[in-house]
Amino acid sequence: MFSGEAIDGAVEALAEDAFAFLERLVAARSTVGNESAACDVLSAELAVSGFDVESLPIPEDIVSDPLAGVRQVPYAGRANVLGSRGAEGGRSLLLNGHLDVVPADTPELWTSPPFRPARRDGRLYGRGAGDMKCGFAMGLLAVRALDEVAPGFDTGRLMLLGAIEEECTGNGTLSAARAGVLADAAVVLEPTDLGILTGGVGVLWLDVRVVGRSAHAESAHLAVNPVDLCSVLARGLRDWCDRLPDEVPDEAFAELASPYNVNVGQISAGDWPSSVPTEALLRLRVGFPRGWSADEAEKRVRAAIDDIVAGDDRFPSAPLVTLTGFRAAGYALADGHPLTAAVAEAHREVHGADPRTYVIGATTDARFYVNDFDVPALCYGPRVFDMHGIDESVDLGSIVDGAKVLARFIHRWFQPVSYG
Amino acid sequence: MFSGEAIDGAVEALAEDAFAFLERLVAARSTVGNESAACDVLSAELAVSGFDVESLPIPEDIVSDPLAGVRQVPYAGRANVLGSRGAEGGRSLLLNGHLDVVPADTPELWTSPPFRPARRDGRLYGRGAGDMKCGFAMGLLAVRALDEVAPGFDTGRLMLLGAIEEECTGNGTLSAARAGVLADAAVVLEPTDLGILTGGVGVLWLDVRVVGRSAHAESAHLAVNPVDLCSVLARGLRDWCDRLPDEVPDEAFAELASPYNVNVGQISAGDWPSSVPTEALLRLRVGFPRGWSADEAEKRVRAAIDDIVAGDDRFPSAPLVTLTGFRAAGYALADGHPLTAAVAEAHREVHGADPRTYVIGATTDARFYVNDFDVPALCYGPRVFDMHGIDESVDLGSIVDGAKVLARFIHRWFQPVSYG
Repeated sequence: MFSGEAIDGAVEALAEDAFAFLERLVAARSTVGNESAACDVLSAELAVSGFDVESLPIPEDIVSDPLAGVRQVPYAGRANVLGSRGAEGGRSLLLNGHLDVVPADTPELWTSPPFRPARRDGRLYGRGAGDMKCGFAMGLLAVRALDEVAPGFDTGRLMLLGAIEEECTGNGTLSAARAGVLADAAVVLEPTDLGILTGGVGVLWLDVRVVGRSAHAESAHLAVNPVDLCSVLARGLRDWCDRLPDEVPDEAFAELASPYNVNVGQISAGDWPSSVPTEALLRLRVGFPRGWSADEAEKRVRAAIDDIVAGDDRFPSAPLVTLTGFRAAGYALADGHPLTAAVAEAHREVHGADPRTYVIGATTDARFYVNDFDVPALCYGPRVFDMHGIDESVDLGSIVDGAKVLARFIHRWFQPVSYG
Repeated sequence: MFSGEAIDGAVEALAEDAFAFLERLVAARSTVGNESAACDVLSAELAVSGFDVESLPIPEDIVSDPLAGVRQVPYAGRANVLGSRGAEGGRSLLLNGHLDVVPADTPELWTSPPFRPARRDGRLYGRGAGDMKCGFAMGLLAVRALDEVAPGFDTGRLMLLGAIEEECTGNGTLSAARAGVLADAAVVLEPTDLGILTGGVGVLWLDVRVVGRSAHAESAHLAVNPVDLCSVLARGLRDWCDRLPDEVPDEAFAELASPYNVNVGQISAGDWPSSVPTEALLRLRVGFPRGWSADEAEKRVRAAIDDIVAGDDRFPSAPLVTLTGFRAAGYALADGHPLTAAVAEAHREVHGADPRTYVIGATTDARFYVNDFDVPALCYGPRVFDMHGIDESVDLGSIVDGAKVLARFIHRWFQPVSYG
């Protein structure tokens, strides 16, 4: 008989297997374009967890989808992984995670190499350990525990999608959704510190190519260093974004101190210390309000850049602005949605308190389900540290705690009865 | 008989040959480490101009010379070119030029490709056309004209040194000087707009590696972007350098509006638009006063960086500072030196007016002769545009005008008599 105690016991008994799976997943350096090894690790784990596994290629023409981001590398040989199990016809549930990770190009700054998973003090360290390979470990730990204590629990379709390109375009999840990988609800296993994440802002990626007036360093005081112009642009765009919460109010994001961040993610300029650079390339990530489409946001950001340039006569020409990835609209699951209530209930049963329900100044693949496919979706996942940073890690205990919650939620999703 | 008219006629008649030689030289893309094709072009031209030509390898141990800059690439297979002619024992003269050019890594911004010499409107365009391959054209044009109108003019050693690494270390000229390539005077054929350049400031190259606090872009407002810290450093160092003329007064450089420029020559940071970069690399060129040795300057720049860092609590750690090239002390030929007077006299004869005599906020290889080898040296050369910049060019007419002056100067150097 299914009981809270039984599920907790099964989760704990299987935890070490889940951690080992997570280690294999972290060791597969799945930066954009290099996802196949991680896909293989996930596929194998799905298979031993009772899923039928298929590879879902991304059609090249996804790039012309109005919801798509700007492609990073061709899609040939790259695919999402889909695991499916359970009976046909009942209530369906989609677990979603992303297999891709952001780069870790300064490994020398890490305590241990980013793609060599290392356990220390109850955490697992590694690029992607937090964002978000730990979510797969949590999700499959819940499913395997349910198989132990409630075999046959999945009276409807239970799917787990391992998507690629969440970190740059969302085209992985988008193409799967276009191919019909949808359900009555979706839980995205992003790290949330065991809170319920219900919304995110819009995100745009853009390259800004800034030409200055080059010269010998001896004449630097008469030249225009494009690196200085980049500072002007970054500062101007940050000021602009800081004004957006007042100019485009959104109650759902009012709690955030800085919802619409501008991030200088990359910069490069120059070819010689004694030459004033001819141009600089600024690679930006800009957050924008949920009230705007990606197209609208692009128009507004371009106008903001035009204004900044017009206000500083050192710009010899207008910078060249191109979109390079995310064209992600903001989203928010309706307040008090039954899906949120269901996850919260399971969380309360395990933790004795309500989970934090919140939104963030970033995006997740949940946006497609909520905005475009009429599938209620939220994120729920482990406690992590230093996502996208040095020494990224996950609290291993939170994977266990989260799996206990998720198992209860899944069980009740398919077996809507109460248990003690 | 030698006359001003005769030398001018010969220079003009030979000018087209000199321009063609310059085109061959510009077409040889002699960035650091890639000088051999340009060496070959110069060697061939020296040979047909009556010079004995030899290749002067740079000993690897030049790097331990207290006057050396920090090596860029190993010296194996790289060499200076030395041409020598004239009688032994008389008064000697050394013409010096450098064969290396700075990179031109944004060719798409040029009107014509940087390493495909192109003539337009009386100028020759190309990287190095101005800095300073035109000087070789001017120098050899003068010598060949003298051979026409005053054969046997070189009653002492006349040498022409084609040095490498002037643009980054000075180790080419330094090693030649250490090997005894010295004379009673040196004229460095740097572009001077037919003025007499008698001094330059000290120059240091340094890399500054700045670590920030990386994070997901969503937390950018809580993170520390090292690109912002680079702006702080660049601004702080510029302010520091701007104070130097008052703090370390030098009458010889008092005429300059901005003698000690700090140039952000290169910057790179980040690996992902949605990640706050972990670190940034700033490649700087810093000018410093003639009163300081390179070691002293390094100490002072490091202290200035320490002060800037101490004044901004966003720096999580002290930046890593390493020297990367120039360790060049400032220099100035004594005011009213007879060498200056001699070149000025030749200039007056051609142009009917005194040349501008000046110093710059940069360095030249003349520093070694003046500071360290007791050889009076100055720079005299053509009129150029956009050195180190886009569409660098030389005014071809100024090569001819300069050769007329140089021929008179050389002739009188060896034949100290007046002529009409």
